[in-house]
Amino acid sequence: MLISELDTPVAIVDLDRLEANIARLQSYLDAHGIANRPHIKTHKIPAIAQMQVNAGAVGITCQKLGEAEVMAEASAGSVAGLSDIFLPYNIVGPAKLQRLVALMRRVTLSVTADSAVTARGLSSAVSQSDAPLPLEVLVEFDTGMGRCGVQSPAEAADLARLIHSLPGLRFGGLMTYPFNEHTAAFVEATRALLKPDGLTVARVSAGGTPQMWRAHTCPVITEYRAGMYVYGDRYTLQSGAMTLDDCALKVITTVVSRPTAARGILDAGSKVFSSDTLGQEGYGLILEYPEARFYGQSEEHGHVDFSACVRRPEIGERVTVIPNHCCPVSNLFNQMVGVRGEQVEVVWPVAARGQVQ
Amino acid sequence: MLISELDTPVAIVDLDRLEANIARLQSYLDAHGIANRPHIKTHKIPAIAQMQVNAGAVGITCQKLGEAEVMAEASAGSVAGLSDIFLPYNIVGPAKLQRLVALMRRVTLSVTADSAVTARGLSSAVSQSDAPLPLEVLVEFDTGMGRCGVQSPAEAADLARLIHSLPGLRFGGLMTYPFNEHTAAFVEATRALLKPDGLTVARVSAGGTPQMWRAHTCPVITEYRAGMYVYGDRYTLQSGAMTLDDCALKVITTVVSRPTAARGILDAGSKVFSSDTLGQEGYGLILEYPEARFYGQSEEHGHVDFSACVRRPEIGERVTVIPNHCCPVSNLFNQMVGVRGEQVEVVWPVAARGQVQ
Repeated sequence: MLISELDTPVAIVDLDRLEANIARLQSYLDAHGIANRPHIKTHKIPAIAQMQVNAGAVGITCQKLGEAEVMAEASAGSVAGLSDIFLPYNIVGPAKLQRLVALMRRVTLSVTADSAVTARGLSSAVSQSDAPLPLEVLVEFDTGMGRCGVQSPAEAADLARLIHSLPGLRFGGLMTYPFNEHTAAFVEATRALLKPDGLTVARVSAGGTPQMWRAHTCPVITEYRAGMYVYGDRYTLQSGAMTLDDCALKVITTVVSRPTAARGILDAGSKVFSSDTLGQEGYGLILEYPEARFYGQSEEHGHVDFSACVRRPEIGERVTVIPNHCCPVSNLFNQMVGVRGEQVEVVWPVAARGQVQ
Repeated sequence: MLISELDTPVAIVDLDRLEANIARLQSYLDAHGIANRPHIKTHKIPAIAQMQVNAGAVGITCQKLGEAEVMAEASAGSVAGLSDIFLPYNIVGPAKLQRLVALMRRVTLSVTADSAVTARGLSSAVSQSDAPLPLEVLVEFDTGMGRCGVQSPAEAADLARLIHSLPGLRFGGLMTYPFNEHTAAFVEATRALLKPDGLTVARVSAGGTPQMWRAHTCPVITEYRAGMYVYGDRYTLQSGAMTLDDCALKVITTVVSRPTAARGILDAGSKVFSSDTLGQEGYGLILEYPEARFYGQSEEHGHVDFSACVRRPEIGERVTVIPNHCCPVSNLFNQMVGVRGEQVEVVWPVAARGQVQ
């Protein structure tokens, strides 16, 4: 089947570019002795995770327990090698802790905590189970994002000591997202505080696609988690981390209305592109009409101003969009179509989409 | 099972409120002699569509062909009565026209067009098929939203005449979204232009939850399409169309981190709430902490400032959120949990979610 035969809106992934993106980051991280642990939250597809592991990733990162369960399930089936999973999330509450224990029986798991409550909950659940112990727990720290994470090296060291002391757990190191100019100092200070206790910070896990090519400039980093680098989007383009020729994910849409001389309406809106802007103006880059302004969306319509374009599209014409943010887009599609050249090669269910728990 | 036993994040629908919302709009539209044709894009659940039809709706509205196919399929099974479907969308291109014809064999279908291209495509596809004819086509017009729709009564009349002349089609009337103070004049002017041709504007279909209680003030309206009224959200609250006690959809989340004295992090972000703001400040109303400011999101984390709250939540505490916009939220969940009081009564798959084509 040809791309031109696919109905719209449809999300396609250029497999040549996908493979090149996977190889490029792997090669960079290998060159700098940093372990690659790609984040599957972007694609949510076991087959792509397998490509990442086959290329040399030490394991994968999942953001939700449900994603990890889907990957573990796939690994028990035809998709091999998704058996080392890092879950950099505070797993809280009896239902999730029970699932965590079940997952530990199937794959090598590591998690994070940023509070004593999370750490004690993990310890209590795993030490009373028959799961293989210990569970490796990294302390999440915050050097600027203002999301989760302990706020100071002293807090990090206290939590590391607690984790070390709790039954069933092993202190594995430190985790942050993204990294910045304060990250190395935070890690070194924590390391110094833990030295008298004989505790070492083995893993220092950082992440983020926009700054991935600078990972080596932060010498404390031992492991890197990037997600968006497989697909690319308008945001990673703007960040300079990827070029237009690297962008593997595109959404093909159809112009279904031309109500005025300037305006064109696409058959895809916020239920395809999401409303994420990540600081961008508008909702996507239209490759055939780069001067067009994709200025608005409703749920199933994209609102485009073509007034700056010399030629303007006819009703029924297909246009290709690079979205602002690839992660929510892939989460809105039930399937992703892998293409090579103009040919459809594979259709992947987005197996871990909608795994919010 | 009790609500308190559900893991988070979870989307729940209060069935008493859902039923009351369905009954209230039906009763209002009945009182004013306006046909009710609720939009299922909000809930995407055949069982709720059936509740709407059972309450007196003349049929349902779907935004995408895929949604209509799911509803038609359900109607062929255990969920009766979803056999009159309005698809107020320009159906363009051979693949979709083929599916449209297949759908016409199963349900009573009506559609819209805002261009000769769309109308000719519809005619060509249906007149060469064995589908029951004619297909009823309404002309979409624009009195202010700036999305699809013809721009003037003259254009509307021209398109109506074309539809009337094309094989296999019947001109059914006019459609707009939303309606406003210009709507009635537009319809009357079009009516006057069509009178010499002997063409009548039978259906005038308008929609929108925020302005639903004013439908009777626009006397040309014969049919109303509301979607969000079943669930309600922060946007409909702000519009004044619904009260907090009417809001049937809530998302229960867990506080998984309290990194600072002020900040709390929820286990739900833009992959649960979407990034839709609809002009609201922040991403949702936290019922237990109405003074809290849900100021930020990442994909799987909600960022909340609790500094204005006298009491602040502990890690592990569950909090209930009224989202900004219910439609994308329901589209992000695989299932919706129907509750009565504290008891879980039913779990519905969101059957038509992800139907972007």
